Amino acid sequence: MPQLRKDPIVDRWVIIATERGRRPSDFAHDPVRVDDRSCPFCPGNEHMTPDEVFAVRDGDGAPWSVRVVPNKFPALEIEGGLDREGVGMFDQMNGVGAHEVVIESPDHQAELCEMPAEQIVKVLTTFQHRVEDLRGDPRFRHTVIFRNYGSVAGASLSHPHSQLIALPIMPQLVRAKLQAAREHYAHKERCIFCDLIKQELDFGDRLVAATDYFVTVSPFASRFPFELAVYPRRHCHDIVLATEEETWALAHTLIDILGRMKSTLDNPAYNMIIQTSPSIRPRPGRPDYWGTIEMDYHWHIEIFPRLTKMAGFEWGTGFYINPVAPEEATQHLRNSRRQAVAS
Amino acid sequence: MPQLRKDPIVDRWVIIATERGRRPSDFAHDPVRVDDRSCPFCPGNEHMTPDEVFAVRDGDGAPWSVRVVPNKFPALEIEGGLDREGVGMFDQMNGVGAHEVVIESPDHQAELCEMPAEQIVKVLTTFQHRVEDLRGDPRFRHTVIFRNYGSVAGASLSHPHSQLIALPIMPQLVRAKLQAAREHYAHKERCIFCDLIKQELDFGDRLVAATDYFVTVSPFASRFPFELAVYPRRHCHDIVLATEEETWALAHTLIDILGRMKSTLDNPAYNMIIQTSPSIRPRPGRPDYWGTIEMDYHWHIEIFPRLTKMAGFEWGTGFYINPVAPEEATQHLRNSRRQAVAS
Repeated sequence: MPQLRKDPIVDRWVIIATERGRRPSDFAHDPVRVDDRSCPFCPGNEHMTPDEVFAVRDGDGAPWSVRVVPNKFPALEIEGGLDREGVGMFDQMNGVGAHEVVIESPDHQAELCEMPAEQIVKVLTTFQHRVEDLRGDPRFRHTVIFRNYGSVAGASLSHPHSQLIALPIMPQLVRAKLQAAREHYAHKERCIFCDLIKQELDFGDRLVAATDYFVTVSPFASRFPFELAVYPRRHCHDIVLATEEETWALAHTLIDILGRMKSTLDNPAYNMIIQTSPSIRPRPGRPDYWGTIEMDYHWHIEIFPRLTKMAGFEWGTGFYINPVAPEEATQHLRNSRRQAVAS
Repeated sequence: MPQLRKDPIVDRWVIIATERGRRPSDFAHDPVRVDDRSCPFCPGNEHMTPDEVFAVRDGDGAPWSVRVVPNKFPALEIEGGLDREGVGMFDQMNGVGAHEVVIESPDHQAELCEMPAEQIVKVLTTFQHRVEDLRGDPRFRHTVIFRNYGSVAGASLSHPHSQLIALPIMPQLVRAKLQAAREHYAHKERCIFCDLIKQELDFGDRLVAATDYFVTVSPFASRFPFELAVYPRRHCHDIVLATEEETWALAHTLIDILGRMKSTLDNPAYNMIIQTSPSIRPRPGRPDYWGTIEMDYHWHIEIFPRLTKMAGFEWGTGFYINPVAPEEATQHLRNSRRQAVAS
């Protein structure tokens, strides 16, 4: 069973998941990548994965077009109780959680930014279904949806896929966002993200793309070169509540911005994270009460192409050095569209 | 001039340092490494670096054995005022700070874990001098000392060196440690690090090495496989106050643990960070008052071999997945000493 452990000094949890473990000598090289012919995510190889927990099919008996399976090497395990425990000054609990893989297409070679919008809509709808379902489990506080593209970004299989992890702990970074949003709302009765979107639309120099439904910016304090954030224009705390119109619009936005990133940066590895509302809202009076969340939080997507290396300074401080101003990144990404249109 | 920018939602600063900038096409490959024959850190090539700010020499006119120069591609610039400014809801200031390189040896091929202890003592003494000197500048709040070893860890030159960055902002992660230490002291009138050291000596299963002066553990909530933390046994908030005996003992500890890490993990890339007391202590009543710091804080060193990749989950949550339990890492590192002694 994996373990969740809390740093005794700073408020940071880690998952010690030795079931994924390797011997010291295994770290010298990248993990071996599965040969494409024996890809466990390809149709016909369904027996190579754990049983599916969800799938999209165009009709009864039709082949799947999106398939969700438990991760074969899960960071957290679905069965068991939390068994919170103190060990001297240390805090730990069982590594209980869900770790699922969303296989985004039967096509091994497909790339998200080149899929038909209809296929991406199926993927987004799958995220909504899975998040909603995992919220039903009272052990879980939050579900994170993320996509690792390319080996540098942590992907070990090239077949297009995303992952979901449902956690029994609210992650530090998500908590910081939720708290900031709640404090802003308490002072101003406005959503901090709505304020930010309005300001970025006014300024314009970090505005990578804007449609009737979604606004994409290169954030003012980008940690990484060409970092992107995608916000729905309509105030909403939860991707589960995105309408059908919005999921179609988001599919088109993702095709657009990931395509521009691909052409501008020569197909970079990237990470994409969907930040949405937590799973549960504890009672008023508790420090983790998210009482005004419908008003104060605003779901969004973060995308980081993996172009720079983290070094000692960043690890030791939580302070980032970014060699490309977001205004410059925005220019490059905007020009990329013009080229694409011109060609 | 680089810029410091604060994320408007979470308390996170970034340095936008476009002087270090690259074109989008430059990110496709690693930066070109300097040919060893034209290494700017080698004796005879002193003209290739900015003028030295400090050096250790065995006598007047003797060649240098440790040399400190401003970084040729600084993340922050030494001249100028902070010019704090709000831009709508955003906060920014000039990227004022110091960014120095400590050339640890004239020998291009030297490795820290194989240097004579005497040479490492000179490096540590140099850190003490530079931190003390940078504290004299009232613009700076904190100085970070770090070492990037190997390309994966962010080193762009192989000649042995460390770096110092003096910042006008207290970094988030350092602030979190200082606050936790202060709160613990306020409750218990004990140093949280002293408590931790005592407990790890009692438990023993994460104890990698212990001498009369230093204790090395693989932390309970290690973020990374084979992460290490080195604590001086004597309570002290500041590496500048380490005694001559302690710097000699630390040199021997570094040779020991970095040597074991090298043999266990086949010479991994790593980052090392020295966490010491901040530069200034503002007045009581201010939120960043470090009034009891001499009693509550405890300087220490963090070491992370770079064996795993950060992926979407980690970036999106601040939650880490570590596939090697620190107790297991401790066993491997202890066995490595036995092998070394046996051979």
